[in-house]
Amino acid sequence: MAEEAIFEYLHSEIVNYTLTKDSNKENDLSALEYIGYSTGYRIIERLTREWPRFKDELDTMKFICTDFWSSIYKKQIDNLRTNHQGVYVLQDNAFRFLTRLSSSSQYLEHAPKFVAFTCGLVRGSLANLGITSTVTAEVQTMPSCKFHIQVNRG
Amino acid sequence: MAEEAIFEYLHSEIVNYTLTKDSNKENDLSALEYIGYSTGYRIIERLTREWPRFKDELDTMKFICTDFWSSIYKKQIDNLRTNHQGVYVLQDNAFRFLTRLSSSSQYLEHAPKFVAFTCGLVRGSLANLGITSTVTAEVQTMPSCKFHIQVNRG
Repeated sequence: MAEEAIFEYLHSEIVNYTLTKDSNKENDLSALEYIGYSTGYRIIERLTREWPRFKDELDTMKFICTDFWSSIYKKQIDNLRTNHQGVYVLQDNAFRFLTRLSSSSQYLEHAPKFVAFTCGLVRGSLANLGITSTVTAEVQTMPSCKFHIQVNRG
Repeated sequence: MAEEAIFEYLHSEIVNYTLTKDSNKENDLSALEYIGYSTGYRIIERLTREWPRFKDELDTMKFICTDFWSSIYKKQIDNLRTNHQGVYVLQDNAFRFLTRLSSSSQYLEHAPKFVAFTCGLVRGSLANLGITSTVTAEVQTMPSCKFHIQVNRG
């Protein structure tokens, strides 16, 4: 329990720190995204060390939804959808960094800063697995969150 | 294993981030120390929630050396010494954030940035338990580290 907690609290302090440091809101989010990217890029090597090669892009996405998500967030992604043309939507119905915020809609405006790190984490992990992408998040009803992955081809 | 890893990698990215952000080295370390302080201040509440009150300062320090250290760093402090006048020296013979650095002495100069967060973590935890202190770290032989706690009385 404490092991999970330290990651959670540290993440939350990073959010505070980057927000305080930079008065420009967009810069804050890109700093968080970048910290996530670097973390994802490195941690995926450790997580896939004893894993066979993924057979295709979809196979990689399934790994992100299951083993990867469980390792980091203690639950799997609840729903994965794809248009089979490079767009993947990963839905987490109880995203860990949002579950502590009140679910009342007045907190919705704070959601972006609690998802930026994870957008980067996914983007960095995929990058190290050879998939260049753009990752954004959409929060309509807390604590549910949809992560949109757009694979950049060519 | 991954749970431990994510904390470790995130910590390491925070070190990189604060170092890149700020060209003044002392500022970097104080930023890291402050992130540690805030994290410690909050996490100790969770860790001591079902714990009886500590009977005195030494009892609190013993908790930091055992349960607290184990929760965060997966091992206990190896040695605790005190002068019984408010100075405590906690020695970790294989401090987790240093074990990945090469033990060769050429890396010694990098040690301060890997211990600053933890100095803050201890100071913040103690602060929330009613003990105001100054915490510094001393690295002579990697990956061993001594944390010096000076309790500020009165």
